[in-house]
Amino acid sequence: MILTLKPGRTLFSLVLSYTDTAKIPGITIAGASPQDTIYTPPADAELIHHGHCISIPGLPVTPDGKPTPALLTRAALTYADIPHIVIDAGCAVSPQMPHIHTGIKPGNNIEVKPAMSYKDALYTMQVGEYVGHTLSSLCDNLIIGESIPAGTTTALALLRGLNLPYKVSSSMPDNPTDIKERVVSAALSRLNMDTYLNVAAQTADPMILFVAGMLNGSSSNVILAGGTQMLAVLALSIKMKHNIQDTTLATTTYVADDPKVSFHKQAELFGVNVISVNPHLEDSRHAGIRAYAEGFAKEGAGAGGAIYAAQTITNTDILPRIDEEYDTILLDRD
Amino acid sequence: MILTLKPGRTLFSLVLSYTDTAKIPGITIAGASPQDTIYTPPADAELIHHGHCISIPGLPVTPDGKPTPALLTRAALTYADIPHIVIDAGCAVSPQMPHIHTGIKPGNNIEVKPAMSYKDALYTMQVGEYVGHTLSSLCDNLIIGESIPAGTTTALALLRGLNLPYKVSSSMPDNPTDIKERVVSAALSRLNMDTYLNVAAQTADPMILFVAGMLNGSSSNVILAGGTQMLAVLALSIKMKHNIQDTTLATTTYVADDPKVSFHKQAELFGVNVISVNPHLEDSRHAGIRAYAEGFAKEGAGAGGAIYAAQTITNTDILPRIDEEYDTILLDRD
Repeated sequence: MILTLKPGRTLFSLVLSYTDTAKIPGITIAGASPQDTIYTPPADAELIHHGHCISIPGLPVTPDGKPTPALLTRAALTYADIPHIVIDAGCAVSPQMPHIHTGIKPGNNIEVKPAMSYKDALYTMQVGEYVGHTLSSLCDNLIIGESIPAGTTTALALLRGLNLPYKVSSSMPDNPTDIKERVVSAALSRLNMDTYLNVAAQTADPMILFVAGMLNGSSSNVILAGGTQMLAVLALSIKMKHNIQDTTLATTTYVADDPKVSFHKQAELFGVNVISVNPHLEDSRHAGIRAYAEGFAKEGAGAGGAIYAAQTITNTDILPRIDEEYDTILLDRD
Repeated sequence: MILTLKPGRTLFSLVLSYTDTAKIPGITIAGASPQDTIYTPPADAELIHHGHCISIPGLPVTPDGKPTPALLTRAALTYADIPHIVIDAGCAVSPQMPHIHTGIKPGNNIEVKPAMSYKDALYTMQVGEYVGHTLSSLCDNLIIGESIPAGTTTALALLRGLNLPYKVSSSMPDNPTDIKERVVSAALSRLNMDTYLNVAAQTADPMILFVAGMLNGSSSNVILAGGTQMLAVLALSIKMKHNIQDTTLATTTYVADDPKVSFHKQAELFGVNVISVNPHLEDSRHAGIRAYAEGFAKEGAGAGGAIYAAQTITNTDILPRIDEEYDTILLDRD
């Protein structure tokens, strides 16, 4: 199988969203504290767009200071001059930069109530279809990344709700499986399984519904840039009998080769192409970047897909650019 | 001079904005009453996108019931399958559809105070540059239309502020010249002319600043779809020494051939291509559409550029589609 970008225009889109599930203590490290996770999606987008964040000082970090994968995305997109469009598909805090506004609300905490109403799920998917249709009509390769804290938990709940026994990844080396299982069990205990869209409304998050809509509305080559959350999007698309031909999953080797999630096997079952990109972050000059190669963060904000596209377009390794980008940010902070 | 679309992708963008100048009684008919003009930009965009408005019942009409030119734009874009992206660049009321959010505020009433601060003018132009850069990198022909009530008055104030003795068009057969002159005089009496950007900040509206920014940020073939307001955009761009090569003005013959405004002559002085499209609206089955050929509305919401692009792409007259579109809307209303 030849995995490559189609000749022509490449567009990177970043879908920002939020689920109140992220406020459960210990469920995510996408933010310095559970309350800080509301700022992570807008700050990721601001970092990619402006080179610095506006909604928060510094940049999104884990509680112990490891930087957001949006830093990798920023380095890749700017180096390869790939245009980006950011979509607010349910943020708690909107990004301070031009972005596509959709009117979609954040998802509820699935431990205590359904993620959203059936009507909101339908609306979210329909708006995603329009955005996917429009953006894909403007490019030959549409990359879709995401930023939603606790998104692996809602992805897991959806996969279980669809009776798919897949595993999900985590931004932590020690996946907080106990907490995730507790939340997922609570969500599934309420599950009223009539339609697949309703299962998603009850268990998932707005990002999954929106990206599934984008994929369904798209005409061009779509590259889902992400790990197990994008697998959950595909699972929903397949169950809903959407056409997923010409879809590629692109992620970092840190997710794809994680023995805990059997990513390649799951993607193969779905019949989609997989691109697994190794950005050799273990060779970074920065400890916070080397941590990615040790199992922290691993992926996010479409980093794997952005790096893949940038390396393909420029035929250059992106790591030196990532290190330079981090130098600039650390310098600004001093 | 051969005037045609470049081969490849065509994207229609619609810049919505607002100026409180539109609340001056008698200055515009872009709305059933001065207060209703705040709904005209979002309703225009909703009509183009959904085929019906959400912010208002029915569709934007003049006080005596003539329909908005957005109806023509809708018919043209849907027939030729041209994708559209709507930008809120200073609306008083946001459109209810996915659109690019910019954080730009409406302009002030220039009869009583400067349109905006210098800082806001700079921000508006910079955001326009980013949006223009991004959208133009995704297509071969970027059409830019606008919807801003009372926009010909702010365009006139800017042209006078730049010492350009041009005339502007009007959505009325009897241009309310007295009111416009009164407002423009008030704006110019306060004018502190240090930089061209500052002149625009004091006299113009957010649409003009934003579209001038888009034009400056664009790499591809830009088609400014509009009449004398787009001439004001070009005048500002030229004064600011922006590159306006590869720019085309596209409008209806109702504006271009209006003996009161010498449109062709003014455009020639700027050295830009002019496309003047005659949609033969005098042959419409609907009196409200035939009124366009009698000097009402004339242009707006990028109608001239959208009709030109649609007729070029499909090699078909769009009038039957316009009549059908209006049939559908009238049917929905019954």
